[in-house]
Amino acid sequence: MAQQHLDPPTDPTAGPVTSDALAGYLRAQATEFLRSLRQHRETGAGAASGSAESVAAARALRRSARRISGSLHTFRPLLDTDWSEGMRPELAWLSGTLAREHAYGARLERLLGALNRLSGSAALPSQASGANAHPTPKGTLTVGAAKAGALLDRQLTLARTRAHSAALQALGSSRFHAVADSVAVLASEVPLTPAAPATDLRPLAAAAADRLTDAVAALPLVTAGHPYNAQALVHGLSADTAPQPQDAPWHQVRLLLRLHRYARELMYGDECPTDVRLLAAGQALNRHRDAAEAASAAASAARTPRIAPATAYALGVLHADQRHEVEAARFAFQQAWQKEAVRTL
Amino acid sequence: MAQQHLDPPTDPTAGPVTSDALAGYLRAQATEFLRSLRQHRETGAGAASGSAESVAAARALRRSARRISGSLHTFRPLLDTDWSEGMRPELAWLSGTLAREHAYGARLERLLGALNRLSGSAALPSQASGANAHPTPKGTLTVGAAKAGALLDRQLTLARTRAHSAALQALGSSRFHAVADSVAVLASEVPLTPAAPATDLRPLAAAAADRLTDAVAALPLVTAGHPYNAQALVHGLSADTAPQPQDAPWHQVRLLLRLHRYARELMYGDECPTDVRLLAAGQALNRHRDAAEAASAAASAARTPRIAPATAYALGVLHADQRHEVEAARFAFQQAWQKEAVRTL
Repeated sequence: MAQQHLDPPTDPTAGPVTSDALAGYLRAQATEFLRSLRQHRETGAGAASGSAESVAAARALRRSARRISGSLHTFRPLLDTDWSEGMRPELAWLSGTLAREHAYGARLERLLGALNRLSGSAALPSQASGANAHPTPKGTLTVGAAKAGALLDRQLTLARTRAHSAALQALGSSRFHAVADSVAVLASEVPLTPAAPATDLRPLAAAAADRLTDAVAALPLVTAGHPYNAQALVHGLSADTAPQPQDAPWHQVRLLLRLHRYARELMYGDECPTDVRLLAAGQALNRHRDAAEAASAAASAARTPRIAPATAYALGVLHADQRHEVEAARFAFQQAWQKEAVRTL
Repeated sequence: MAQQHLDPPTDPTAGPVTSDALAGYLRAQATEFLRSLRQHRETGAGAASGSAESVAAARALRRSARRISGSLHTFRPLLDTDWSEGMRPELAWLSGTLAREHAYGARLERLLGALNRLSGSAALPSQASGANAHPTPKGTLTVGAAKAGALLDRQLTLARTRAHSAALQALGSSRFHAVADSVAVLASEVPLTPAAPATDLRPLAAAAADRLTDAVAALPLVTAGHPYNAQALVHGLSADTAPQPQDAPWHQVRLLLRLHRYARELMYGDECPTDVRLLAAGQALNRHRDAAEAASAAASAARTPRIAPATAYALGVLHADQRHEVEAARFAFQQAWQKEAVRTL
């Protein structure tokens, strides 16, 4: 496959992009962070399971934390080194802690949905009530599928509850207050280096795009473009319980794609055009990550002591199904990526 | 997808094809049947597991039995009804009985190969010695995969041994001798109807081609052409242990493709050109059938009482893997079929 090039991050005919754009973007994200934090506190973040508003607020908080952290990384030569190097791990800790609760819930929903699909029932189960509470008319779950669903429900709900408590604890910690204070400072005063005002942001944004392009070029895209290549399940029964090493470069591209996307937002400002190619590629990589983690969760549930063989069988089918989702997501990424970039602006 | 048309069974500029072609083809196949039978008897068909020569002879016997039976079906208006209607079920019984031994062996090989692939070991296991006798350097099998391999080895080897005995018994039976006698008569004298010499074979061959085209048109080829449609595993965990109803139309197309192929052989005689499209489509349907039956065997092994959960898990992964092979085979068929027929003659 020929090397694909990305859109230039800004209109090449325009002049240099100055540190004002960086400062403006960081201030806006910091303001959004503080707004989401206030909303999260007001919408009953203390409840056992967050309300819809509280969930939305936590998501917005993560969203701005990721954008601040990503911009500190991409444009670090313009920022006070000590400050930005102290800030990034704290933001990563925060968004990671907040993301976990959501991830466990989404993973359970994905796995119960797959169990129903694999049982020939079209209806999705209600997440709260478990897989076997809703026998659908078209095909009831087998004993194995129902027990696998109940086991996953138990394990992932427990993990989610723990993640929820951990998130609440984090939001009440002095560590978090220090992060919030730093973000509050950022909302008014961005600590730029003395040389920043004379620095053009474009080469730094272009470097982020190049890192993405290089990482994509290293992916096995020729294989991924051949449907049913049976690569994703190659270690489906291997003795190694660690995350599959073949997934790592894809996860890495997902992160680099995100950094590139944030850099585009920053460079274009409010007029940032939607790049459907990046959007589709990003969605494929999210699906890749979710399916890989769901496959892992099924394999891990199958290692629970004293489960029935029928339960283990259903978890084996589920694991393989999710690994095929991983393969399907790689195919979808390959298809999205090979499309020529179409300028929408 | 636009309706695909098949090659006309013969050169349309040539004249009618007469019953001589039918009689010649049937006589040749009957002679081949008798030759293979003699060879099968001479090459130690009585041994517990047939020698390579005996296996080849049994294959040739089945091959000619299928061709005789298929031609009796496609061209039945030209043949004595009582005789041909008495003959066909006997030939089907014979080739079915002979096919079983080979099928169990091939199924075991496919499943052990898949277990190795899923364990990240590239090497194929030796069929005779079971899956766990050959830990490969790259990745040894997990306990579950090794036990699943041993269980499948036990079950399918037993089934194969039984099929071997049944085949030997069949070949010594009076029922078989009656079939062999009928085929011996056919080798010298084909029982045509009085009207046969005046009948053109081409409309009958064309009707066989039309039956194939119609059956293909009824397949869900649009879905099959979208990779990773997740259709083949839709009932992967359903409570129903019967063969998957979604497979039946594909198996039916496989049989109709075979009848069409035999009709072409008969019409073209020795100059029958290879139609690569038919060849690829037929191979995809064979793979479809083999994977569907292997998936069934894995599911059935998982219902063995008192197996370990790890064994059941490995069998679940294996079942899903083979159902994905089913889906991959449908995709391959769709790809082969949509290619325009290219005349090679």
